[in-house]
Amino acid sequence: MSTWDKLGEECGVFGIMSHPEAARIAYLGLYALQHRGQESAGIVSAHGNKLHIEKGMGHVADLFTAARIEKLPGDAALGHVRYSTAGESSSRNAQPIMVDCWRGPISLAHNGNLTNARELRRELEQDGAIFYSTSDSEVVLHLMSRSRRRTVREAFIEALRQIQGAYSLVVLTPEYLLAARDPHGFRPLCIGRVDGACVVASETCALDLINAEYVRDVEPGEVLRIRRDGGDGEGEIEVLESQMPLPKGKPSFCVFEHIYFSRPDSIVFGRTVNTSRREMGRLLAREQPVDADVVVPIPDSGVAAAIGFSRESGIPLEFGLIRNHYVGRTFIEPRQSIRNFGVKVKLNPVREILRGKRVVLLDDSIVRGTTSQKIVNIVRAGGAKEIHMRITSPPLVAPCYYGIDIPTRRELIASTKSVDEICEFIGADSLGYLSLEATLRAVDDKRQFCSACFTGSYPTEVVPLERQKNLFVEVAGRDDDGR
Amino acid sequence: MSTWDKLGEECGVFGIMSHPEAARIAYLGLYALQHRGQESAGIVSAHGNKLHIEKGMGHVADLFTAARIEKLPGDAALGHVRYSTAGESSSRNAQPIMVDCWRGPISLAHNGNLTNARELRRELEQDGAIFYSTSDSEVVLHLMSRSRRRTVREAFIEALRQIQGAYSLVVLTPEYLLAARDPHGFRPLCIGRVDGACVVASETCALDLINAEYVRDVEPGEVLRIRRDGGDGEGEIEVLESQMPLPKGKPSFCVFEHIYFSRPDSIVFGRTVNTSRREMGRLLAREQPVDADVVVPIPDSGVAAAIGFSRESGIPLEFGLIRNHYVGRTFIEPRQSIRNFGVKVKLNPVREILRGKRVVLLDDSIVRGTTSQKIVNIVRAGGAKEIHMRITSPPLVAPCYYGIDIPTRRELIASTKSVDEICEFIGADSLGYLSLEATLRAVDDKRQFCSACFTGSYPTEVVPLERQKNLFVEVAGRDDDGR
Amino acid sequence: MSTWDKLGEECGVFGIMSHPEAARIAYLGLYALQHRGQESAGIVSAHGNKLHIEKGMGHVADLFTAARIEKLPGDAALGHVRYSTAGESSSRNAQPIMVDCWRGPISLAHNGNLTNARELRRELEQDGAIFYSTSDSEVVLHLMSRSRRRTVREAFIEALRQIQGAYSLVVLTPEYLLAARDPHGFRPLCIGRVDGACVVASETCALDLINAEYVRDVEPGEVLRIRRDGGDGEGEIEVLESQMPLPKGKPSFCVFEHIYFSRPDSIVFGRTVNTSRREMGRLLAREQPVDADVVVPIPDSGVAAAIGFSRESGIPLEFGLIRNHYVGRTFIEPRQSIRNFGVKVKLNPVREILRGKRVVLLDDSIVRGTTSQKIVNIVRAGGAKEIHMRITSPPLVAPCYYGIDIPTRRELIASTKSVDEICEFIGADSLGYLSLEATLRAVDDKRQFCSACFTGSYPTEVVPLERQKNLFVEVAGRDDDGR
Amino acid sequence: MSTWDKLGEECGVFGIMSHPEAARIAYLGLYALQHRGQESAGIVSAHGNKLHIEKGMGHVADLFTAARIEKLPGDAALGHVRYSTAGESSSRNAQPIMVDCWRGPISLAHNGNLTNARELRRELEQDGAIFYSTSDSEVVLHLMSRSRRRTVREAFIEALRQIQGAYSLVVLTPEYLLAARDPHGFRPLCIGRVDGACVVASETCALDLINAEYVRDVEPGEVLRIRRDGGDGEGEIEVLESQMPLPKGKPSFCVFEHIYFSRPDSIVFGRTVNTSRREMGRLLAREQPVDADVVVPIPDSGVAAAIGFSRESGIPLEFGLIRNHYVGRTFIEPRQSIRNFGVKVKLNPVREILRGKRVVLLDDSIVRGTTSQKIVNIVRAGGAKEIHMRITSPPLVAPCYYGIDIPTRRELIASTKSVDEICEFIGADSLGYLSLEATLRAVDDKRQFCSACFTGSYPTEVVPLERQKNLFVEVAGRDDDGR
Repeated sequence: MSTWDKLGEECGVFGIMSHPEAARIAYLGLYALQHRGQESAGIVSAHGNKLHIEKGMGHVADLFTAARIEKLPGDAALGHVRYSTAGESSSRNAQPIMVDCWRGPISLAHNGNLTNARELRRELEQDGAIFYSTSDSEVVLHLMSRSRRRTVREAFIEALRQIQGAYSLVVLTPEYLLAARDPHGFRPLCIGRVDGACVVASETCALDLINAEYVRDVEPGEVLRIRRDGGDGEGEIEVLESQMPLPKGKPSFCVFEHIYFSRPDSIVFGRTVNTSRREMGRLLAREQPVDADVVVPIPDSGVAAAIGFSRESGIPLEFGLIRNHYVGRTFIEPRQSIRNFGVKVKLNPVREILRGKRVVLLDDSIVRGTTSQKIVNIVRAGGAKEIHMRITSPPLVAPCYYGIDIPTRRELIASTKSVDEICEFIGADSLGYLSLEATLRAVDDKRQFCSACFTGSYPTEVVPLERQKNLFVEVAGRDDDGR
Repeated sequence: MSTWDKLGEECGVFGIMSHPEAARIAYLGLYALQHRGQESAGIVSAHGNKLHIEKGMGHVADLFTAARIEKLPGDAALGHVRYSTAGESSSRNAQPIMVDCWRGPISLAHNGNLTNARELRRELEQDGAIFYSTSDSEVVLHLMSRSRRRTVREAFIEALRQIQGAYSLVVLTPEYLLAARDPHGFRPLCIGRVDGACVVASETCALDLINAEYVRDVEPGEVLRIRRDGGDGEGEIEVLESQMPLPKGKPSFCVFEHIYFSRPDSIVFGRTVNTSRREMGRLLAREQPVDADVVVPIPDSGVAAAIGFSRESGIPLEFGLIRNHYVGRTFIEPRQSIRNFGVKVKLNPVREILRGKRVVLLDDSIVRGTTSQKIVNIVRAGGAKEIHMRITSPPLVAPCYYGIDIPTRRELIASTKSVDEICEFIGADSLGYLSLEATLRAVDDKRQFCSACFTGSYPTEVVPLERQKNLFVEVAGRDDDGR
Repeated sequence: MSTWDKLGEECGVFGIMSHPEAARIAYLGLYALQHRGQESAGIVSAHGNKLHIEKGMGHVADLFTAARIEKLPGDAALGHVRYSTAGESSSRNAQPIMVDCWRGPISLAHNGNLTNARELRRELEQDGAIFYSTSDSEVVLHLMSRSRRRTVREAFIEALRQIQGAYSLVVLTPEYLLAARDPHGFRPLCIGRVDGACVVASETCALDLINAEYVRDVEPGEVLRIRRDGGDGEGEIEVLESQMPLPKGKPSFCVFEHIYFSRPDSIVFGRTVNTSRREMGRLLAREQPVDADVVVPIPDSGVAAAIGFSRESGIPLEFGLIRNHYVGRTFIEPRQSIRNFGVKVKLNPVREILRGKRVVLLDDSIVRGTTSQKIVNIVRAGGAKEIHMRITSPPLVAPCYYGIDIPTRRELIASTKSVDEICEFIGADSLGYLSLEATLRAVDDKRQFCSACFTGSYPTEVVPLERQKNLFVEVAGRDDDGR
Repeated sequence: MSTWDKLGEECGVFGIMSHPEAARIAYLGLYALQHRGQESAGIVSAHGNKLHIEKGMGHVADLFTAARIEKLPGDAALGHVRYSTAGESSSRNAQPIMVDCWRGPISLAHNGNLTNARELRRELEQDGAIFYSTSDSEVVLHLMSRSRRRTVREAFIEALRQIQGAYSLVVLTPEYLLAARDPHGFRPLCIGRVDGACVVASETCALDLINAEYVRDVEPGEVLRIRRDGGDGEGEIEVLESQMPLPKGKPSFCVFEHIYFSRPDSIVFGRTVNTSRREMGRLLAREQPVDADVVVPIPDSGVAAAIGFSRESGIPLEFGLIRNHYVGRTFIEPRQSIRNFGVKVKLNPVREILRGKRVVLLDDSIVRGTTSQKIVNIVRAGGAKEIHMRITSPPLVAPCYYGIDIPTRRELIASTKSVDEICEFIGADSLGYLSLEATLRAVDDKRQFCSACFTGSYPTEVVPLERQKNLFVEVAGRDDDGR
């Protein structure tokens, strides 16, 4: 797998309180988090007792003009970028979600995936709730609205007690910002400070762009309320109120954030991603040594690992595959199709590097195997004599229920084929995966990471994906109407 | 008032069942109903057990391309055009509204205004409902979703029993189309047939364009279920099921549909609009005679009345004001402002007609008086010696709660000024209104029309507009959060 | 024919000098002239020694935003709206045309059609000129550029001496505005004043909107140079310099401007268009009397004539056909086609008016007859018992070479069919045309109008259209390249 | 300098003959050449005796939809991408340029810069030519049009004999494709074959994407005519006719293509760009050794060189600066400005890599020094203890007249400051440039490269840039008009 062989849905969230240009800063935050979701983007701002929203399909840079940012007044803002999702890919699933309820206007942005969303949705629907999206995130707002607790924060906590699975959630009301991370801490969420303002973001690269200082992560199970500074000089303690109201969970940080999803310059789960990747490459060179001439990373995700692999093995690093960075979301293919076109349009081999060489090809993972096959084809066509595929993570054998939607086990090549069979399928001369143990060592794990996709052993109860798929269709067909 | 001095919100609805090109026909229906709302438009189609939706801000002709219509498969469709509304003017209030609930997907389009929407919304919110729009129409879907009745139709009826005010409602589910008109029949809704398909629409001009035959109006208080033809040759009775499940109300057809809102070629409430308008002009000439040289209508609404006035009075009709039909929704005004610009950009006087003449200027109503003042200025600048303003309806003294949102009584010039004072304000030489009695005679009333905006006497209980205005703001500010 | 059965190309031009908001005023001028061309629009402004241009396909209201107008600085501007043209319908034919030559930047806007453009183009091409558009207007710039005369004005006059046919031309350079009308005066061009600024425009309705005073028409054969006011109080004589440098021609004002093209509120060729049309209707009632119940105009062009017809005949006027003013440039037709759809989408009959009536249907002209046929069908379907078509101009038998591009004589129904045959073709019960004599009387002719399209007798030498058609194709195919 | 500190204008060209999907293939070719120009893009296709054009401002992926490609029929096509230019940045300078002349329709795409364009333009203007663009490329079409030679090819050659400077030109007529490279061969142009079709392109990466085989480069001074295959099996010799009609020039390949402009996977001037860059890095490590902890490239241009530097020096390579690949052409900056924002939005330091380290920062060049200063600031803020800037080319001291428009010598920091002064200006601890000798060795020069920007010694006669700048303004202001 490489970045474009979509492992699944992912999102990025960003919230800011007490900044005179809140929406502009949120825009920049999303800019830095764009790699976490390129399908839709949205920003909500709070001004007086109102919330304002602008969202749509597309990239942050294309969606938001200065004129559109002007429509988002106020000193607090909430932003979201989204890739695909647990629901459909359509504009009605774009986030943040903004609603009115008896508590007033509320907006919410979610990164992660709830494992009991179907049950909750079914119960809520049975109780008369109507849903505007097919997103799992919407249930949180229903739960908050139905709570009888006096404050939005209390209602939020009550809702959190009912949801299961993975969530880094940020809620904006006219009064304050709430941020929470599930007790297992599946997805990242960090806290930053800039000038007088307080920021939360999926990755620290968003803090860097706006010159915010990284304070710490929101802890697993922690709920934060971020208020406007009263201006009485009381400082951070007053502004940032932390609670730990949720039952404690086993820390289960998503190891894939380090393997391929986060930006290498981000500090995620307290560790710089680049460090983990280089270490993965280093350990891979030890575990899966190979007699070769060049180490070639599949850009951009494989680059840091390739440095580690090259350094450990002594095999020189070369950029034998060049990525076209101007590839749009769609492209027009000739009718008379070009072989391996989908990959070719993004990657081109450097013949001079590959010709006659024994090549170590470095990637972060293999999902269905079809993209890897095309890449091996391309590298072979580029003249490589031998191709030794090395993967910086173990074989993917099980779907993720925590924000990475590998649809079913069946589609994962490693769930049905041996390493040798995969090697043959993709057409490589050899194939080696990093062991789970080494993978976890690379991220400096102290038993805190989730590796369910490599083991099939989930840290929480989950309903097999195969049974979930027809949920909404079933609902849709339920009306019998006496006929 | 004239067409562009917005009296308020209005909408047009269109539904079709059992047509192979349902969405295309709905598109044409909205095309013909465009005058009822130019702000947003949307179409939902039903295919299999799914609903598909496309909607947005703008004109039907601009929003819908052939490619977009292709995204709306199926043999049933629901369309809506909307002007401003009881809620805000924004994309989230665009209709049809489409949601999922325990009954499956449901979509709804509404023309009219509910008088107890605030109370219902408050109750629903207290019960935990969340609202996506600020539109009153959304409450109907919540009520349907909360109903325990077995079928969508029964739930719809249960919802209708709770709502008050004006509504012509059309609901589309994957199985069938529902149409209902409130017991007072405030807003129009007619039934048509074309080929094997059944159609409902706000005005018959939508039937005409698609070559549908006008069957009859949906009756006040009637609820229709329109099913797919079983193909067993049973015909119309089976397809179109009528019920009268609502408490009977006093018929209260909106007289403004005839005065200015509907298209003159439509049959509305069983009567061709053009006939009513010509008759209004004729009666106005009798009630408010004037010694003048020419009758000049303010296009386009005043034209039919001008024919009646001219014919009755013997004063020749002339088109002394020409309308620019290419005026966009916005236009750029010079910084160094042009006097009466807002009207000038749409209307231009024909000097040759007006110069030295005693002019009878015919309009349908006066709201704030500012537009009338500008028009009088323009006609005067065009050379008129005398300007006798004649209005084809009585003075507007009270807001409408049934789909025409005159914001408050205070803004209505006739609620605070006498006819003489209004005449002076607008700068005319004389001013004459049609009497209420004559207005109702012109629409061939048999005590069936609502004339509350002329009398302040409402056919249903209403909460004064002034008290309604801060509803959502109050809600928004309600959260005290213990501080 | 009616407005939408395109008789052919037409344009509108607008120029302004010495106004602090020149581009904004030009925008408004084009707004008022939009009926003269809806395909493309453009504005050039002059600032310092530079010209700035913004143009594109579409309506003025859609093309120009405030931000785009801001890109057009300076105190002089030139605008153009265009329908189809002597060249193709594409963006490269949009005007104004702006070029650089040894004289510096020059821009030009043209209304009319040059009858010797092909010969001039061929000569220029033989001499090495390259053409960017297929528009006849481009030759004028080549001629100006090739002139050795010292000033732009002299070069302009030299170019004018070489071109033949119809032109109302406006040229903008950084220094001044030039305006010229061909010696026959085929197309209109008027002069106005507003504040200190001087304006030229195709019709006076453009002056009205910007509060400019109508001064007079540019005379046939006149060339004007409009300079910036020196600020020395010398006034108009200095600013507006008139010359009559062209050989005198027989005045040949286009009678079609009065029959259907110009706005009724405009003064064109010194006469209000509305007056001419009403008079045409009046004379038509005398020449082609009919025993009927109602006079129904085809909106919008037939309205003024219908008043005249009704008044003269005593037959009451009724608006039995209603026009949908929201029709876009394109609309999606159902696959299962609707009869007479092209007309139906724009016009709807008022059954209550037409049913059982003997109808006089009033239109301005008949081109191919197909549109008239559809309208007659619609009126018949609306219930009319008899349909008496009356046309406010003589039969069209010959193409126009002066700015109205009826492609070939063959396509004109009246060139091959008798009035009785046309009547049968369109399905009317009777058909009557206004005589040429009466048409000319209606426009208060003193032998100054061109009526070539009714007589085939042209005021200038012309090359039959059939021979012109393949010009550019011939050129394209000329390269033999030795094979 | 790095890729986004614009050294100047550059373009990419692509032509194809005898392919059933010519426009689609041209689209893909431009896709691969997008890095050569992101401002505008265009495609012309030849079908029958006509040319069709689609062009506009923006990226290839955004401009061209399948529907738009459908408007480009035919089996031959010509494409162009453009950055800024010798003329202004506006839509009228977008290429290909398409005109009609006595030879029929001709289109042209140009990469390079003509050094005598001003003189030629002035002469052409004096001779009456009018110019639509401010691009130097337009003169070629005028010269071709004015030529009396019998064929387009002969006229093209005649034009080439008059122009001086840098050009890789491709011309498309309905009959054939012409391609030429100036006698010095400043800019690249290669030939490829795919199926039966013949292709020319700026870089081989465009051939790779469409699976075309790289045949050879167009030679300096060579003119190719590429005709349709007659289908008689005669093969390539017949299709591809080569001539060497121009006076021989000293080969002067642009060394900057290898330093930073071309894609590393391309073969340019017969050598893979990646090889040159790695060699530059290797030689730089020898010439400018430094005692440091890490080698950090400025992405993306510095990467290949960094590998060479690291390998030679033994200092480990690290990706200490991460590029945001989602940066749009514009972004909204906060009003309260962020320090070094312009660079920050694109690059982010990896603190974990930089902290406390002695960093060798690798870039390809320094233009004004301001971007380098910002990058040094960012790296310093990222924690670097020492920053040693190393540049893979010599100091830039003179503008380029061959397609890289450094505006004036004054703006080049190295033309007025010593290396020490530059080092101080950018805030580095040391600064070292690669020597010219080594640079040329790295590209495997056999005295064939142009290095005028490093020496000020130009291979052709040029007019100093300072004198050129006001050319069009002078022209604009030339008209005195007797006042």
